[in-house]
Amino acid sequence: MRIAVDAMGGDNAPDEIVRGALLYRASGGQAEILLVGNEEALRPRAGGIPIVDAREVVGMGEHPSTALRRRSDTSIAVATQLVKDGKADAVVSAGNTGATMAAGLLILGRVRGIDRPALCGMLPTTRSRAACLLDAGATMDATAQNLLQFARMASRFMERVHGRERPTVGLLNVGEEPEKGGRMQLEAHGLLREAADIEFFGNVEGRDILRGTTDVVVTDGFTGNTVAKAMEGVLDVMTDGIRRDIFGGPLGKAAALLALPGIRRFRRAMDYEPYVSAPLLGVNGVSVVTHGRAKARMLKLAIDVAERSVASGLIEAIGAGVSAP
Amino acid sequence: MRIAVDAMGGDNAPDEIVRGALLYRASGGQAEILLVGNEEALRPRAGGIPIVDAREVVGMGEHPSTALRRRSDTSIAVATQLVKDGKADAVVSAGNTGATMAAGLLILGRVRGIDRPALCGMLPTTRSRAACLLDAGATMDATAQNLLQFARMASRFMERVHGRERPTVGLLNVGEEPEKGGRMQLEAHGLLREAADIEFFGNVEGRDILRGTTDVVVTDGFTGNTVAKAMEGVLDVMTDGIRRDIFGGPLGKAAALLALPGIRRFRRAMDYEPYVSAPLLGVNGVSVVTHGRAKARMLKLAIDVAERSVASGLIEAIGAGVSAP
Repeated sequence: MRIAVDAMGGDNAPDEIVRGALLYRASGGQAEILLVGNEEALRPRAGGIPIVDAREVVGMGEHPSTALRRRSDTSIAVATQLVKDGKADAVVSAGNTGATMAAGLLILGRVRGIDRPALCGMLPTTRSRAACLLDAGATMDATAQNLLQFARMASRFMERVHGRERPTVGLLNVGEEPEKGGRMQLEAHGLLREAADIEFFGNVEGRDILRGTTDVVVTDGFTGNTVAKAMEGVLDVMTDGIRRDIFGGPLGKAAALLALPGIRRFRRAMDYEPYVSAPLLGVNGVSVVTHGRAKARMLKLAIDVAERSVASGLIEAIGAGVSAP
Repeated sequence: MRIAVDAMGGDNAPDEIVRGALLYRASGGQAEILLVGNEEALRPRAGGIPIVDAREVVGMGEHPSTALRRRSDTSIAVATQLVKDGKADAVVSAGNTGATMAAGLLILGRVRGIDRPALCGMLPTTRSRAACLLDAGATMDATAQNLLQFARMASRFMERVHGRERPTVGLLNVGEEPEKGGRMQLEAHGLLREAADIEFFGNVEGRDILRGTTDVVVTDGFTGNTVAKAMEGVLDVMTDGIRRDIFGGPLGKAAALLALPGIRRFRRAMDYEPYVSAPLLGVNGVSVVTHGRAKARMLKLAIDVAERSVASGLIEAIGAGVSAP
């Protein structure tokens, strides 16, 4: 197995990306790694990992499809092309998510039977296991049929890559009752209830996401992205508040010393790094997206997810799933 | 001025509701209060506040319009009818939000020129002033035109009731760039940009809500409700985590003693009670909704908001605003 890593993508590229690849190798990872990016920049850091040269980078703030159309030689396009050409089995990137999605769609295409792609937002839950919130931002104007396909893809992902048996699926909605929501949610509820290959739990609300009420929470890409960012916003504000208000002054600093084991416990519980990487579901090849802020450890974990996705036959399972009743 | 209070609505009715009315009166509130609900239950508690009898209650879990259709004598319907009949100037309820909305629409009707109502979700921000997230759940399948009306109504509300000059409006979206979002957001962006009576800031993201980037964040009722509940979910999980993980054990308890002033500061910063009450915007009369968990203080604050809404001519301002260019 061979995994192409976009070495130029993300806020901490290329240093932390290369370090992540080295960490993967050092921890006994089975796949061969290809670092894709500026050869001169990467060579001194790469520790002998093979490099595939790419002269350009899509910036974090750039418009994805414009950037890909103008320059064919970007690290994400070259890395994705390696998968298309059978020279790699998966691509991993911490770069511009829109560009990774656009490259996936343009170069790899969609899995036969899947109309639109979806991005898993993997979140920690209070039940100490990750849940997948999808679509986290790939498909804005999703239909009920799209949501049904998202639910199928995420179910296969949670089975194959996260080892869940019969993962449960909740439809994100404004209330638990089946008649809640707008037109699209009503229709999606009906489709999900009828689907034999999905363990449909029913409607779930925003507060259920972190509670881990279901393994998968399905919604359209607009809602999913907005909700994920709003949740991240609360987390940031709370973390700042704890740091500044509670543990800020001299008394607070003394309290922090006493509370240190607890603070560590709390940090571990809130740690989303092990989960955050996920494949872009629906494209015809394994393309794993991780956080733009990823450092070495998260990058290594993203490569793990790519390895498990390839080894478990995720793409084939998705392809077989969409022809289900 | 006279304000009808639904004394039977909410998790803590009628005790805390009546106590809230008494608190309002004791703190020098200018409006006369009418308590609406079961006379025998209210009489011993009411401290002389006039009671309007209503035999029935809409339960917190009941289907709102069904409940209102079946029983004409519910406290929320009777209280709203008092406004319709000119016997009260405003209605306040901590009860079933759907029932308060349904009663508002059925009994008071809409302001001329407003197609759909919207509910303000008032949130604290790190800039120490509240922001209004609307629609927090009144109109599921909102159009771009609906969002324009929501933005206008919320602007008048923030001016009149919260004393903001030229309140800024952000469109909730998946990115700052004008071309982001789905079809509806694209169209709404154009309409908001062209509106002369709105201080349009541009697109804002989920994380901007608590940062207070704008005074108003406008979105459809499905997204608004889902986002608000997801944010509440993170807050709950974080609060539990702080209590259990950080301040849980014996060392943690000692730390909590040291950190007490800080914990109080943090609680004050996170305190949303002063903000949470808001009128249902777009109905032809002042109808203020507060949290189902409201106790006396929140109820008193909701009556304050009703008083300010009436005194400032909010409904007339909304009616005048919709005929603006």
